[in-house]
Amino acid sequence: MADHHDYLRDGMAIYRESFAIIRAETDLSRFSEDEADIAVRMVHACGNTDAAQYIEFGGGFAAAARAAIAGGAPILCDSEMVAHGITRARLPSSNEVLCTLRDPRVPALAETLSTTRSAAAVELWADRLAGAIVAIGNAPTALFHLLGWLGRGGPKPAAILGIPVGFVGAAESKAALAADPCGVPYLIVRGRMGGSAMTAAAINALARAGL
Amino acid sequence: MADHHDYLRDGMAIYRESFAIIRAETDLSRFSEDEADIAVRMVHACGNTDAAQYIEFGGGFAAAARAAIAGGAPILCDSEMVAHGITRARLPSSNEVLCTLRDPRVPALAETLSTTRSAAAVELWADRLAGAIVAIGNAPTALFHLLGWLGRGGPKPAAILGIPVGFVGAAESKAALAADPCGVPYLIVRGRMGGSAMTAAAINALARAGL
Repeated sequence: MADHHDYLRDGMAIYRESFAIIRAETDLSRFSEDEADIAVRMVHACGNTDAAQYIEFGGGFAAAARAAIAGGAPILCDSEMVAHGITRARLPSSNEVLCTLRDPRVPALAETLSTTRSAAAVELWADRLAGAIVAIGNAPTALFHLLGWLGRGGPKPAAILGIPVGFVGAAESKAALAADPCGVPYLIVRGRMGGSAMTAAAINALARAGL
Repeated sequence: MADHHDYLRDGMAIYRESFAIIRAETDLSRFSEDEADIAVRMVHACGNTDAAQYIEFGGGFAAAARAAIAGGAPILCDSEMVAHGITRARLPSSNEVLCTLRDPRVPALAETLSTTRSAAAVELWADRLAGAIVAIGNAPTALFHLLGWLGRGGPKPAAILGIPVGFVGAAESKAALAADPCGVPYLIVRGRMGGSAMTAAAINALARAGL
């Protein structure tokens, strides 16, 4: 077996070099500086510079989301992977990171509402949704459910990361958010790509500037 | 706001339709049936059919990994996101899912070994590594560290999922694994792509066939 003595072992140096490669290879010209920082971390999380072209910010997302996080807003996640990808130590106000998917009430609620557990879990955000950061990185049905609720006058979050991944409903749910965000600032990745890692990376970028 | 009444809300139907779309759009002809099942779930996790061309199985991976999981092998993960993406209820033998990254010994160990915390955390797998499933979905340094250990005659896992993501070391660490896996069956995604979601999806596919 060959020795592998020549690989970079300094975590901060790896980050710096990674971000430099991404910036060299990716067209970030349509983003503000603040948005570019977020986009770079999202590309880093998926290992694919092509993803940058599908990233879209709306309604002053970066400033609104940063302010909400700085102010202690809870972060409501649709999946355990998103919640566990968020670096708690970066969060400026010991923000609560909540995923209700495994709440024992969810299976019955999904049955009653004739929907997925991911969508039913959104219902359990009721008392925290106003002013919160919503981080959807997995389930299109969770985003659709939230949009339906907002459209009926539900509580408004401070910002929505709408980044579900997949082949059924992902592109459609993200397009629906961008088409009518009900005045809520949003971040999406158009099309099929997205996922928990990109979503958590965006939160980590918002939580604190720099490495 | 438009109503969104027309989206699919049945979780199993969403899976079935998603997998059918992936199979229709992806060339899986170089895979065995068993490998194709795993590849489909990995593509599903990243929302990108292009990823399939980089997936590579070696050393009878699918059969070896399935047998080890069925036999109760622990699953050693390099990140919390991988560990939390694994559906515990699918695991056939209440397999232990372990991530040592947050072990309190890790920061000092990383300092001593002049490496990243992800690589240092691999050291703490010592008493479980023989016969285990290794699931690396984040850190190239973790995979490099493991390869160095194997090359020096360290304990052999039953199978290695080498799927770190990123721009520095990811492609190189995965190529190194495939070039000399020390006789251990492996699964990699060549190049930059990979990540915790694809890694957890592969484990979920191995844990139980079908939806």
